[in-house]
Amino acid sequence: MKWAIIGTWRMCLEGVQKAAALLEKGGKASDAVETAIKEVEDFPFYKSVGYGGLPNEHCEVELDAAFMDGDTFSFGAVAGVRDIKNPISLARRLSRERFNIFLVGQGAEEFAHKNLFQRQNMLTERAKTMWEIRMKKVREGNLSPYDGHDTVGIVALDTLGSMSAGTSTSGLFMKKRGRVGDSPLCGAGLYVDSDVGGAAATGLGEDIMKGCLSYEVVRLMEEGYAPEKAASEALNRFLKKMSDKGRKVGAISLICLDKEGRWGIGTNVEFSFVVADEENGAKVLLARPEKGEVIVKEASEEWLRSYEERLKNPPELNL
Amino acid sequence: MKWAIIGTWRMCLEGVQKAAALLEKGGKASDAVETAIKEVEDFPFYKSVGYGGLPNEHCEVELDAAFMDGDTFSFGAVAGVRDIKNPISLARRLSRERFNIFLVGQGAEEFAHKNLFQRQNMLTERAKTMWEIRMKKVREGNLSPYDGHDTVGIVALDTLGSMSAGTSTSGLFMKKRGRVGDSPLCGAGLYVDSDVGGAAATGLGEDIMKGCLSYEVVRLMEEGYAPEKAASEALNRFLKKMSDKGRKVGAISLICLDKEGRWGIGTNVEFSFVVADEENGAKVLLARPEKGEVIVKEASEEWLRSYEERLKNPPELNL
Repeated sequence: MKWAIIGTWRMCLEGVQKAAALLEKGGKASDAVETAIKEVEDFPFYKSVGYGGLPNEHCEVELDAAFMDGDTFSFGAVAGVRDIKNPISLARRLSRERFNIFLVGQGAEEFAHKNLFQRQNMLTERAKTMWEIRMKKVREGNLSPYDGHDTVGIVALDTLGSMSAGTSTSGLFMKKRGRVGDSPLCGAGLYVDSDVGGAAATGLGEDIMKGCLSYEVVRLMEEGYAPEKAASEALNRFLKKMSDKGRKVGAISLICLDKEGRWGIGTNVEFSFVVADEENGAKVLLARPEKGEVIVKEASEEWLRSYEERLKNPPELNL
Repeated sequence: MKWAIIGTWRMCLEGVQKAAALLEKGGKASDAVETAIKEVEDFPFYKSVGYGGLPNEHCEVELDAAFMDGDTFSFGAVAGVRDIKNPISLARRLSRERFNIFLVGQGAEEFAHKNLFQRQNMLTERAKTMWEIRMKKVREGNLSPYDGHDTVGIVALDTLGSMSAGTSTSGLFMKKRGRVGDSPLCGAGLYVDSDVGGAAATGLGEDIMKGCLSYEVVRLMEEGYAPEKAASEALNRFLKKMSDKGRKVGAISLICLDKEGRWGIGTNVEFSFVVADEENGAKVLLARPEKGEVIVKEASEEWLRSYEERLKNPPELNL
């Protein structure tokens, strides 16, 4: 059978490459998801996930993650955990439990401790400096505190037809202590059913959770929507509903992958993502919304260079 | 227009009566939901919600609650909060925010503090004694620690056609610190859309969240299912899916109410609930599953008397 993997944002490229190599050799979708996300969590310059993630309003890095196995509906999640090296691995560990599968804050940290998870101060010098600059700007009234909330979300299909999904994020930059977004919520931030397909979300969690968007994407695929249509259909219906209710909606991007390895995107902003399968090595693609449709093209050499440049020298740090 | 209100378990009777009086006078669905749930939270003998709620494994009462407005999709939730008198009011307050609408643990308590919410030691002598007895039994290996997890869930429709929903619970008895169930999760524990209807869930949250069951009930009503069918259809599909995946499912009960004031139940256990509308004062009904259908009858005088007897003299305390 075909294997395939999709992930949100350019930041998952190295993780998807590592996971693709694993899937290529017949590895499991669940291991591929954890592998890809750990890579993003461990890289200090990806500023919205794991080590080096963006701090909350008290300059604490509070992390959320979730893992779901599409064969068994095993699900595990953590939210508001501090100083645990790999939240995705903790979420996956919790997915093996029948009770207490979603733990937050101190309780999640205690569980991690008892289960020998590695502790690490997740705050980096760079993230601290970004926080100080942002704090100053917010105080000056020049900036909304809540820009920046990119979740890594991964959906994988392995050669045995098993599927898994995972998410990891530091949540809204400058969020209030204890704030939980969509990422650790089953059906909101991620959902996967090996008999159908899987989906993951990134963007403003406060809005995503109101639409159960990852669940809805998978449900539409089950109803017969091709993945190319399912994610944008789910998003469009939700945007219409919110607009009917007089609500503004923040940035939302959705990825999905079906059990045949076909993928799709829904987004209301410019959005980069990464796809790999047995025919194509991992490549970075760009999606943008246009009249209710999503236009996808491959990222140019220039775009990729400019991304790496910003990663090395973030404009926020050179003011 | 007609008003109507439905709530999970016999314990919401007094709250529903109070809320019904409010709806009768043209009061708002949102106020009705908060009123009904506060009544349950405040009553010390209802042992799975608010004051007197069942403690976690460390004998701490950690509470979860959520509120959703079906007119605007405003949503707010808290999980793992200690010693806040009315978690439902805190959830409703958070639903007025655009960011940081779901807060957990210490962060939720800080928000409550800054917003002048009343603190109260939520542990009662009776709950503490129950905890000690349970702890002893669990140590002796005679009991699963995780029996007892009744959420109060309320869905209301007012005379202007607005709908709201809310939930409140102390979660699984003996849960791990920081454990979050379905109750505070949008789409899992509750969902409401004034253009369609609303739903709420009670039972094993670990399973309910895997099916986004409240969202699914509302979606089925939107698709055209009558409320009498929507809740049991959503549950049956989920039970089939879990069984196909080789999974056991815990107790799950679902209530729903549509925008015409018609209601429905889905349940895989014996389940009591309360309904009131302009034609009938609040009455206690009993539902039980039978061959994929739900049989509903009014609670007998004897059932009601025996309930009150157990409330005054819990058999767990007279061993």
